Amino acid sequence: MLAFENDYSRAAHPAILEALERTSENLYSGYGSDEICASAKERIKAACGSPDADVWFLVGGTQANQVVIDAITPAWAGVVAVESGHPNVHEAGAIEYAGHKVLTLPHHNGLMDARELDDYCATFYADANHEHMVFPGCVYISLPTEYGTMYTKAELEALAAVAHKYDMPLFVDGARLGYGLTATGCDITLSDLAAIADVFYIGGTKVGAMFGEAVVFTRGNTPKHFLTLIKQHGALLAKGWLLGLQFDTLFTDDLYLRIARNANVAADCIRAALREKGYTLTFDAPTNQIFVTLDRPTIERLERDVRLGFMEKADDTHTVMRICTSWSTTDEQVDQLIALL
Amino acid sequence: MLAFENDYSRAAHPAILEALERTSENLYSGYGSDEICASAKERIKAACGSPDADVWFLVGGTQANQVVIDAITPAWAGVVAVESGHPNVHEAGAIEYAGHKVLTLPHHNGLMDARELDDYCATFYADANHEHMVFPGCVYISLPTEYGTMYTKAELEALAAVAHKYDMPLFVDGARLGYGLTATGCDITLSDLAAIADVFYIGGTKVGAMFGEAVVFTRGNTPKHFLTLIKQHGALLAKGWLLGLQFDTLFTDDLYLRIARNANVAADCIRAALREKGYTLTFDAPTNQIFVTLDRPTIERLERDVRLGFMEKADDTHTVMRICTSWSTTDEQVDQLIALL
Amino acid sequence: MLAFENDYSRAAHPAILEALERTSENLYSGYGSDEICASAKERIKAACGSPDADVWFLVGGTQANQVVIDAITPAWAGVVAVESGHPNVHEAGAIEYAGHKVLTLPHHNGLMDARELDDYCATFYADANHEHMVFPGCVYISLPTEYGTMYTKAELEALAAVAHKYDMPLFVDGARLGYGLTATGCDITLSDLAAIADVFYIGGTKVGAMFGEAVVFTRGNTPKHFLTLIKQHGALLAKGWLLGLQFDTLFTDDLYLRIARNANVAADCIRAALREKGYTLTFDAPTNQIFVTLDRPTIERLERDVRLGFMEKADDTHTVMRICTSWSTTDEQVDQLIALL
Amino acid sequence: MLAFENDYSRAAHPAILEALERTSENLYSGYGSDEICASAKERIKAACGSPDADVWFLVGGTQANQVVIDAITPAWAGVVAVESGHPNVHEAGAIEYAGHKVLTLPHHNGLMDARELDDYCATFYADANHEHMVFPGCVYISLPTEYGTMYTKAELEALAAVAHKYDMPLFVDGARLGYGLTATGCDITLSDLAAIADVFYIGGTKVGAMFGEAVVFTRGNTPKHFLTLIKQHGALLAKGWLLGLQFDTLFTDDLYLRIARNANVAADCIRAALREKGYTLTFDAPTNQIFVTLDRPTIERLERDVRLGFMEKADDTHTVMRICTSWSTTDEQVDQLIALL
Repeated sequence: MLAFENDYSRAAHPAILEALERTSENLYSGYGSDEICASAKERIKAACGSPDADVWFLVGGTQANQVVIDAITPAWAGVVAVESGHPNVHEAGAIEYAGHKVLTLPHHNGLMDARELDDYCATFYADANHEHMVFPGCVYISLPTEYGTMYTKAELEALAAVAHKYDMPLFVDGARLGYGLTATGCDITLSDLAAIADVFYIGGTKVGAMFGEAVVFTRGNTPKHFLTLIKQHGALLAKGWLLGLQFDTLFTDDLYLRIARNANVAADCIRAALREKGYTLTFDAPTNQIFVTLDRPTIERLERDVRLGFMEKADDTHTVMRICTSWSTTDEQVDQLIALL
Repeated sequence: MLAFENDYSRAAHPAILEALERTSENLYSGYGSDEICASAKERIKAACGSPDADVWFLVGGTQANQVVIDAITPAWAGVVAVESGHPNVHEAGAIEYAGHKVLTLPHHNGLMDARELDDYCATFYADANHEHMVFPGCVYISLPTEYGTMYTKAELEALAAVAHKYDMPLFVDGARLGYGLTATGCDITLSDLAAIADVFYIGGTKVGAMFGEAVVFTRGNTPKHFLTLIKQHGALLAKGWLLGLQFDTLFTDDLYLRIARNANVAADCIRAALREKGYTLTFDAPTNQIFVTLDRPTIERLERDVRLGFMEKADDTHTVMRICTSWSTTDEQVDQLIALL
Repeated sequence: MLAFENDYSRAAHPAILEALERTSENLYSGYGSDEICASAKERIKAACGSPDADVWFLVGGTQANQVVIDAITPAWAGVVAVESGHPNVHEAGAIEYAGHKVLTLPHHNGLMDARELDDYCATFYADANHEHMVFPGCVYISLPTEYGTMYTKAELEALAAVAHKYDMPLFVDGARLGYGLTATGCDITLSDLAAIADVFYIGGTKVGAMFGEAVVFTRGNTPKHFLTLIKQHGALLAKGWLLGLQFDTLFTDDLYLRIARNANVAADCIRAALREKGYTLTFDAPTNQIFVTLDRPTIERLERDVRLGFMEKADDTHTVMRICTSWSTTDEQVDQLIALL
Repeated sequence: MLAFENDYSRAAHPAILEALERTSENLYSGYGSDEICASAKERIKAACGSPDADVWFLVGGTQANQVVIDAITPAWAGVVAVESGHPNVHEAGAIEYAGHKVLTLPHHNGLMDARELDDYCATFYADANHEHMVFPGCVYISLPTEYGTMYTKAELEALAAVAHKYDMPLFVDGARLGYGLTATGCDITLSDLAAIADVFYIGGTKVGAMFGEAVVFTRGNTPKHFLTLIKQHGALLAKGWLLGLQFDTLFTDDLYLRIARNANVAADCIRAALREKGYTLTFDAPTNQIFVTLDRPTIERLERDVRLGFMEKADDTHTVMRICTSWSTTDEQVDQLIALL
């Protein structure tokens, strides 16, 4: 059975398992106070070209969203996100559990529009009753989005400019950041992102790690007593060096971006084949998630041999399905899938 | 200066101030454990035709929404409301502060559609990922709505049926309940409401009281230790009998509905005059809130003599303004306003 | 039946009811944006000798504690209070509901000791694991305390000094502030309090008002968007001028302190009589709450004619009972009580 | 440098790393819905002798405490724990962040006394004002305690009986459960624990796993929609099988208890040596944590060669230090340490 249903179904890149094996008899101090975490942080700061950045390691994406949004959003405010944003839909209310409203904008294939953000804020502050309402307090976007789509560097800068105009930090969820930065046509580098966003994270769980997200506060703007806030959210890993070890490995010899690119090369091949065979790509997403609108017989035929992801119903007879490649997808798997299409 | 900008700008109905004066030298036990509260509760239960109901007195509407929604919504769930619903827009995030997401449906002149509610829930439970999402846990509507519109009894029953189908209590915000129940064309009685809704409140603040909302759990379904939950929200009034006294007065000799009707009679007159003079009523609302779309010169002319409420911009040259009558509006004030139109 | 069980069992001072009657046909704008609130705030600032102070009106004491503590305590921190403090014992967990731990010190007849506060903080910061613990974030005391006891001005200054040493605001719960400031031997004035504390409130509910607590941020240090925070806690009264009206009355011609003093005069008489008759005063409290340790037969005898408050069991045969005077206690009631002792 | 400062400074038992390596090329479905988790759950249920138990895997201890306590404690209630309990001291307020007060009892070398628990609850319910207070809603203990001490089976049963008398579930934190169950003199088995407690967890992080705590609801009493609650707390691991894999390994061939016992054998040797050499054991704890009161010169001498844990200051010249063995402590390390004493 071929598996293209998601990008988090294999344990970790071999280099990470080797690093784990290699260090397994060593003893490290707890809670991220070890030398491997220190090394990993330095490597990430270097890769970001941000000597003033602070790097923190968390275990998972929803956890990172909850901890970071709660830490950077004032008590009187909410987080602005597009309706399809992960915290608005697929985090079981983790943000509201932390006391903050998710203020939603329409999405455009998953993307937020800077002008719409500006209009939203302008309308808010112009409303005579706005003190009875939830203030827009920070901006959340994901790169790439839930639909695999990407911002251009100019779009990202425009969003940051609007966010800062209204005194909001821009937070970028990078659960699949590697797949975004290495997508065909992407004009954003890690350094660009660090220069533009106020805080973002580099997703490990979906890009080669067993688990782990590296949160980067880009300009010495870590919230006060952030370690305590992490602990308070139950998010502080006792053996913190296991997080450091994975990111230290991923940020050695550019491994993170190299293995991410592999997924995009595979996805580009599959997209080309789909187009050639007359399939309808649901939207033009350049990253490792391919969305394709299929009728039921086609889905049934394909699912005999390959696991696909379910996205949403398109109409009474069609469904949007997801084909997801990953750092571990092989040429052979791609060829097998294309043969089935 | 005429004042039609809202329905909460005068202290209280004279009968309430008289009752306060009459009892002002008496001593009562605290926190609602007094005999006046007991009497008021009995009167309300009788007016509702609900011997099994439990009645609780809170100070204000946002407080009532926060305390009730938090008490009846499970931890894994949110409250379903229309986008224009008060808790979604004008409560500064009080529901999210209490840890619950407001799950929104489109509104139709402020009203929720039972079929859309059903579709929402059906789609939710059909989603393979719904355990990662916020469950619909209770249904919030207001009667009348933010736009002054009313449900029919059949619509209310349909909403309750859908709510119960998905194991959700139906909660009705009655901040302006009196103005709803006495509106021209309303086919819902207080008894009907008590029979249909699981919990609702009878608004005092806007209908003759200094302050106070009487929360009615209609079938012995008060949440466990509700007094403690009220206290925990900082919502337990020390001199609780002041709440009881007001509702005891309002529910003696049908005062509540009688004074509410006065506002609707006044509003009906104004609506007739507006139509006659060719004004555009923004939507067909039968209660004490009249929404009218005006151009700027008209607004400026009117606002020389009368205070109106701002609702929202309609387009570049028009604004939706609110004319709001109340229990205390006099025929003379109505005539003066009509003369100005 | 004589009533000495608490100080909140009568509606309000006649001057307040008269003011209410006098203004009852006027129309005011909502949510505290009216001219009476403005006047009341000016009077309070003048009485405090604090032109830079900001004054806010809330409805009740637990509400004030919850809203203020939540607003001034950082996310990583808790509020330091004595074990007997109201938020720690009698607020149904309102502070924890708001997400903050109550960090407790031992009490000394209800009082906090500045040296113990200093030791607590010093020990906290010296603990190598303190980043895994709840930081002390603000200091809560009450004046007078739960036991009716009072700080001296020097003790208050010492507490403020320690609080500020560790970067914590000092918050003083003044639910019975009038009874404290006018107690025999009290060397603290309202101006002193405003100069020493960072935020405090002037209790109205127990000192002549129907309801209401006037929160004073003493040095232009109101938390950002405090109105929105109040709304978010469900604590914003629609007819805010009802709060302003009461405090405007209480702070005209020194009414607040004059009527408070009445309670202390009465309490001093009762205390003298108790001592003379050989009763055991439980502790030396100079304010309107008298605590006396009684055996069961005495309690039963007294309770035939007078309602007393229950405080706590002293031992198997004795109970600490509370005799509570108020602004409305008359000489005749005092004489009747003394005759019964 | 010898390392005896804690039991979580080595990655994992070799058998776990081997299992990880062995399965590293396999693909598994996410969020714990895989076959390895299913297998691990069955093994744990079998080890507990509890076919009706439900098993859930979380990443860490504070997270487990927060998620479980929040799920089993009613909104009006708090969790009863001893003052030295981990959630009360070392979780940065994670429980209060979740809205619940920690209600504290005195500890006796870390242990809760069943009679004191009973008295606490009896006093609470006898208090006429208890509806204004935080109800005792569940009981938290740890096995072994923060001080390494153990309950007897009879003590555990007594605590459960009192908890159930007041309608509270008994929750047992087993972060070091293996070290408790295999301690010399322990008369509690895993089956006993499953029969007595309502919910407990089997600590993996400190007993051989890289990370992970297996939460066991012992009688089909899993809170409704617990998966959603886990997600809402940001605690749902994407690659859930990594948790399953570790517990599947630990509960194969009794590995968990076998490696735990190793730590106790080592600790018993060290304790015997300490006693023989005249050291003062701070309290009589039979598990892998040894607490010893040392003067400064001794500490300085030892710390030249061995890392010890700091517990607390005993007096001006003595400090309580912790010597902690683990599943990976070797005979050679024990001999080296003893030679240094």
